[in-house]
Formats: sequence, structure tokens, C-alpha cells
Amino acid sequence: MFLAQVHVTYKPSILDPQAVAIKNAMHRLDFDEVTAVQQGKYFEITLKASNADEAENQTEAICDQLLANPNMETYRYEVKELANQ
Amino acid sequence: MFLAQVHVTYKPSILDPQAVAIKNAMHRLDFDEVTAVQQGKYFEITLKASNADEAENQTEAICDQLLANPNMETYRYEVKELANQ
Repeated sequence: MFLAQVHVTYKPSILDPQAVAIKNAMHRLDFDEVTAVQQGKYFEITLKASNADEAENQTEAICDQLLANPNMETYRYEVKELANQ
Repeated sequence: MFLAQVHVTYKPSILDPQAVAIKNAMHRLDFDEVTAVQQGKYFEITLKASNADEAENQTEAICDQLLANPNMETYRYEVKELANQ
């Protein structure tokens, strides 16, 4: 069993008004030290695979076909093996 | 400058229908190897602080006051120092 940890975030060129709103809210709460905020989605996927390469290929296909919008978002992932249960 | 990477996820006791829907969508796309999905929010916060302890305290206060719903969600974070720019 493998655990894939996936982060999906907007491409740097895409304006993210939600992140701007969060930063403004931080400043209203007097967290003036904050200079930038980025926000995105996080997924933990547990999957069966015979080896790490196969798990990575599966994860990449899942991101391409389902989790990320290729027009606006990028993704990165890490795959690690889980101890046998 | 420090970068805080924050993950906000539902507590294990909270039913997450969106994660169930994502898992079902994976199975419809023939990713039958997937056995579990968890989803959450991810934030990258760039902030000024004089040391790592102060940056961690700031991050924790921000999570408590803004980013996480203490009734339903938990958070975890990592703080790392950015190279001076």
C-alpha cells in the first residue's frame, strides 16, 4: 500500500482572489508580518500498487484526469510506502 | 522571512462526503487500486519573523483564529526559513 500526498495549486500566472481575501483577513486580525498567501487543495490517496513507480504513475494519471484543472492549476505529489497492515 | 506550509483537514470523526465523491469518481475512471481518499486545504504563508519560534507561534495563532474550524478540522504546519532575498 502506498500513500500519495498531492498538492494542487493555481499556476503563478493565475490571479487568486481567495488568497488575497485570506491575506487581507490576516492583516485585519493584526498579523501584519504576513507578506504573501497562496492557497490550494490537498489530497491524501491510499492506493494499492506493486511498487513505487506504479504508484507514482497512478497518482499522476489521477491528477491529470480528475484532481487538477490543467488550464489553471499545477500539482505536485509525493508517494511513500505504508507499513504493511 | 519564513514560509509556513499549513494543511487543514477534517478530524477523522467527521464524515467527508466530498472525499467519498472523489473516491467514487476515481473508481468510475477505473482507478480501482484506490482504497481511501482524504481531502483538505493547503496554505503557504510567507511571513516576517525574527526567528523560527516566533514564526511558528504566528502560524499557530493564524490557524486558530482564521484558517481552521476548531469544531471540525485539525491542522498541521511546517515552518522553514527562506533564503534572504
